[in-house]
Amino acid sequence: MDHCVADLPRGPLDFYRQKASFNWKDMLLFFEGEDILAFKQHVFNALEGDPVFARQPGEDVPLEKMRELTFLRYQRLFRYDFLTRDEVMANPWKTVVLSDCLGMYDWAMSAKYFLNKGVSMFGATIANAGSGRHRKFTYGCFALTELSHGSNTRAMRTTATYDPATQEFVITSPDFEAAKFWVGNLGKTATHAMVFAQLYTLDQVCHGLHSFIVPVRDPKTLLAVPGVLVGDMGKKLGQNGLDNGFALFHNVRIPRENLLNKTGDVTPDGRYVTPFKDPNKRFGESLGALSGGRVSITRMALVNLKLALIVAIRFSATRRQFGPQNTEEIPVLEYQLQQWRLIPYLAAAYALEHFSKSIFMNFAEFQLGQMMREKSARQAEMGREIHAIGCASKPLGSWTAQRGIQECREACGGHGYLAMNRLGDLRNDNDPNCTYEGDNNVLLQQTSNYLLGWLHPQFHAVRIESPFHTVDFLNDFHKILETKFTAGTMEECMDSAVPLAAYKWLVCFLLEESRRRLEQLRASGKDEFEVRNSSQVYYCRSLAIAYIELNCLQRFHDLATDEDTPAGLRPVLSKLCALYGLWSLSSHMATLYQGEYLSGRKPTELVQMAILALCSQLKDDAVTLVDVFAPSDFILNSPIGNADGQLYKNLWATVMQGSQVLERPSWWKEFCSDKPVVGSLRPKL
Amino acid sequence: MDHCVADLPRGPLDFYRQKASFNWKDMLLFFEGEDILAFKQHVFNALEGDPVFARQPGEDVPLEKMRELTFLRYQRLFRYDFLTRDEVMANPWKTVVLSDCLGMYDWAMSAKYFLNKGVSMFGATIANAGSGRHRKFTYGCFALTELSHGSNTRAMRTTATYDPATQEFVITSPDFEAAKFWVGNLGKTATHAMVFAQLYTLDQVCHGLHSFIVPVRDPKTLLAVPGVLVGDMGKKLGQNGLDNGFALFHNVRIPRENLLNKTGDVTPDGRYVTPFKDPNKRFGESLGALSGGRVSITRMALVNLKLALIVAIRFSATRRQFGPQNTEEIPVLEYQLQQWRLIPYLAAAYALEHFSKSIFMNFAEFQLGQMMREKSARQAEMGREIHAIGCASKPLGSWTAQRGIQECREACGGHGYLAMNRLGDLRNDNDPNCTYEGDNNVLLQQTSNYLLGWLHPQFHAVRIESPFHTVDFLNDFHKILETKFTAGTMEECMDSAVPLAAYKWLVCFLLEESRRRLEQLRASGKDEFEVRNSSQVYYCRSLAIAYIELNCLQRFHDLATDEDTPAGLRPVLSKLCALYGLWSLSSHMATLYQGEYLSGRKPTELVQMAILALCSQLKDDAVTLVDVFAPSDFILNSPIGNADGQLYKNLWATVMQGSQVLERPSWWKEFCSDKPVVGSLRPKL
Repeated sequence: MDHCVADLPRGPLDFYRQKASFNWKDMLLFFEGEDILAFKQHVFNALEGDPVFARQPGEDVPLEKMRELTFLRYQRLFRYDFLTRDEVMANPWKTVVLSDCLGMYDWAMSAKYFLNKGVSMFGATIANAGSGRHRKFTYGCFALTELSHGSNTRAMRTTATYDPATQEFVITSPDFEAAKFWVGNLGKTATHAMVFAQLYTLDQVCHGLHSFIVPVRDPKTLLAVPGVLVGDMGKKLGQNGLDNGFALFHNVRIPRENLLNKTGDVTPDGRYVTPFKDPNKRFGESLGALSGGRVSITRMALVNLKLALIVAIRFSATRRQFGPQNTEEIPVLEYQLQQWRLIPYLAAAYALEHFSKSIFMNFAEFQLGQMMREKSARQAEMGREIHAIGCASKPLGSWTAQRGIQECREACGGHGYLAMNRLGDLRNDNDPNCTYEGDNNVLLQQTSNYLLGWLHPQFHAVRIESPFHTVDFLNDFHKILETKFTAGTMEECMDSAVPLAAYKWLVCFLLEESRRRLEQLRASGKDEFEVRNSSQVYYCRSLAIAYIELNCLQRFHDLATDEDTPAGLRPVLSKLCALYGLWSLSSHMATLYQGEYLSGRKPTELVQMAILALCSQLKDDAVTLVDVFAPSDFILNSPIGNADGQLYKNLWATVMQGSQVLERPSWWKEFCSDKPVVGSLRPKL
Repeated sequence: MDHCVADLPRGPLDFYRQKASFNWKDMLLFFEGEDILAFKQHVFNALEGDPVFARQPGEDVPLEKMRELTFLRYQRLFRYDFLTRDEVMANPWKTVVLSDCLGMYDWAMSAKYFLNKGVSMFGATIANAGSGRHRKFTYGCFALTELSHGSNTRAMRTTATYDPATQEFVITSPDFEAAKFWVGNLGKTATHAMVFAQLYTLDQVCHGLHSFIVPVRDPKTLLAVPGVLVGDMGKKLGQNGLDNGFALFHNVRIPRENLLNKTGDVTPDGRYVTPFKDPNKRFGESLGALSGGRVSITRMALVNLKLALIVAIRFSATRRQFGPQNTEEIPVLEYQLQQWRLIPYLAAAYALEHFSKSIFMNFAEFQLGQMMREKSARQAEMGREIHAIGCASKPLGSWTAQRGIQECREACGGHGYLAMNRLGDLRNDNDPNCTYEGDNNVLLQQTSNYLLGWLHPQFHAVRIESPFHTVDFLNDFHKILETKFTAGTMEECMDSAVPLAAYKWLVCFLLEESRRRLEQLRASGKDEFEVRNSSQVYYCRSLAIAYIELNCLQRFHDLATDEDTPAGLRPVLSKLCALYGLWSLSSHMATLYQGEYLSGRKPTELVQMAILALCSQLKDDAVTLVDVFAPSDFILNSPIGNADGQLYKNLWATVMQGSQVLERPSWWKEFCSDKPVVGSLRPKL
């Protein structure tokens, strides 16, 4: 495999690399496989070798320029055509790998690429929702959200009224509050939008939300088409290479065929027809489809967390500060606090690495069934389960990344606050993962609803076996609720089986508590809306989070204990798994005590000591663990995170390469013509 | 007072304003007083009326332009000279109020202003450290940190060697790793730097770190002086209006008089002399002085949190999404989850408002003693206590703000991700508060060391009475450790006395546990460095955090229960105080169970229910509570947070005012000459 994985440069990081308990190339091979490694290398080399992708760490690029650069890069990516249809068919995972690679370089570019490449929503929805007649549309965007509505899609107010006289739909925005908003690609470049609008027939009957292909700009001039007010929303906290936009429609007429007619159609004479007898089934179908985005976001967030950890851990291994009397200063990674701040996130990254991959495979299985027009009950059940998983995996991934990146920023001190070291961009680019495709807190309710469903009497008799087995443990619901924390020593605690057992109890406990809470509220005469509203905090929300953490831990535990996992890797993977489990669990200690799964002073002490012991055991592997998922320095683009570990040399060089770094300001005369005099104030007290 | 506080505009927020349980102007008057209110109004009006301060929300300003604008604004502020020396002497608090006002507008401008106005470090240190002979230096900066050293100030490597032949000091940077780095104002504008360097006499004896005034740029040309390599560090995550810079010194000669000679001096013939017999005392003196910055940062972070809360709560009160069947959608502030996400931070803001003010008064008292050259034991003790307070108040303030601002960003959904709504700038500008003047985690060790000192046998007999009374409760150390959680109902829990008692137990418990941990480690034969290193996580660090949270809660509790606090305000203040206490305490539940202060399921349930009850009781006051500390819309600069509550009107208007919002991109031909074709890929699976 050496042809696709270069050795690492010698340098200050050797100190830790030599202490590693495993071979990093074995780990790489285990997680990726030769084929994927070669593919990643191919993509990275292409970008690094192409001047269009050249950049200066931390450079100050104006918005307009950023949009242009992103477009030019997107064009080049199109040329490279890294993945053929056959390759994707042979190995769908490669699509995710390509997304990882492009995202590591820049998420805005990746988003623009996938939005148009037809791999993401636009194409996907055309291919799924359209019946083959919409292949001609090219540079598109997905216009669902409105200025005044996001989560509540049913409340969208844009209308599409069918006019049999001309066999056209008339697209209308009732007012600016119904303007389509936040649409990626619409700001500057999209020529067509897939607009979600309420479909009305001439009899004024509303048939619900449908999607329509609406031209918004003339592809020959990029000027707006008559009747469409389209524009750019302006600067965002991050991902500014992507042009998000808005659109207002003033009686824009489109041919009848522009309705994406999979879920419903209108006959030329104006009758609404739908293939769905049961509207619920229709709803169920779309549920699963929506999961694709959330499963992908889980992965995108993980990529951000990994990049931040590479920077922070390489920095911590080479940054020396203080030390024992009369010795040279020691790397900050040697400090218990620094280990405790960073290494649990490293463990989380490994847990999420396997988790995000395996839930993608779950989604792939569901999606395959959809393409085969599979109508079985199992297919519908898969849709419900992957929906429950995706609605909680996105919060787990995006929040873990958000907190982890912030911790990495602070762990790098002032140097972490320099734009050139990229931690700011990582945080800013990751942030929207908490929001789009559904606000994290709102999505979690979907998952808790799914879980509460399993308490329904209809399941009391039957043996639960869900397609992806994430709720099978509920068969032992009552037995699990009787279990207690039994570990008596720190060593016992350092086994992922301990947090795993605790999590099973936790989910069962929170499920029972949530059910009781809901019943109490109903009994008190509150309406269903108020009942739901008053049972989220500490109950349903915690339930959904515990469920997905359990699931993530379970999958990692299975991997780390699998006989097929190379023996040389199992020890370090087991430590990472135990650390992830205990560390995540420690945010639920109050509940564990509340339900008397824990009692007395011992358990907390054992868990805490086990976490610290695992951190210190893993600190010598930390550098090698980030080497495993580190891209080339060019892609990482963070001087303090370079593979050679020459922290100060690289940082200083990048500072000196900055534009006008040594020049006096262009406005120096304004300064000198009016030199400030000393203030009249005494020092602040 | 109406002349200095305008009424609020009518609008959608009236719905909540009419439900408020108190008069917002009474609250304003109680916290600020007429004089301060008039002063703030004066400052705000000056900025709003002056075109130099005009800006467009979310506009994309290039780095160089931002630096220029900040300088021009700084110049104007100089003209306005808002505070005379007499005013500050009459009411030192006004300096903080001015800092609040300028910071609300832009922290980079505020930093530049105070760095030069002589109110911050430069002037302060000259006035304290200098003996009157350094008044001539004007446009300065404070150069301590080096590229390879921050926290470990003793390890600074820049040298100042005295040459009796010419009666000059020779300033030298041994290599680029010793370059002064992160120096505010040094990037583009500073003409002089106060450089911290190791003082050497000709006999090669090092007398430790001293500060020297070193010219770096020619005030007439802003070009670097010979021997100094000075430049700009480039883009940061935030506060980009401030030019942070670096400097390398190559045998730069400065007159002997440029040594700031308060802590030590060199005679013309080259003998080192110091007024300090006891180097510890000298160290103690400087300790207290450093607290000024940390106390100020606590306040700065609070201001950021307040601004974010104004935006998020006004947004939540006007953003409607979903609702009960067949009713109009309800404000998201009506959701339990939204209340729980935001209102505890609102309570924290009120707690920190009083806390940051009262610790400033503590610091003022200490600083006054310093000016009076007070040498009493009490003065030294004040220094130690304010140091312990400042080293923990900065972490408390900056972390609470960092998390709170992120929660506000997410609570505003996609609109919170638009730069124009300012939550990104607030987060980015607040972030360095976690790092400068000492990394939060490192500083906390100073506080725990102070607390552990009180367990020393010498205090067993004596009655502890510290100058600021933050540790007086330790007199009841053993009695407190025997207490238990006794509240039996949710109503009982809704009293700040409950978390207050719990916190006292928590601090005593963690103090005892930390002491034991340290002893165990020492007994195991570890050296003192390793002992300290291995006792931070879960022990000393938690101890310092619990201590400062207790202190913050105690002061707020005293205020809310004070007879002199207007009766009309006490109810709402008491609720805020109880909520802040319970919410903060809930992050320590595991420890409370571990030490068996809590047992069984009831306590957690009571605390959780009390938090939710307080959130829902305070939700109708939330809008009015942020009105109390809201500046004018011009200063707040966030369309979704305007006082009139016209969320969409203001947001839409600002979007449409954006530059080139409706224009096609300048690079449209590149796009049209090469329109992307549909991708070869099928949808992601």
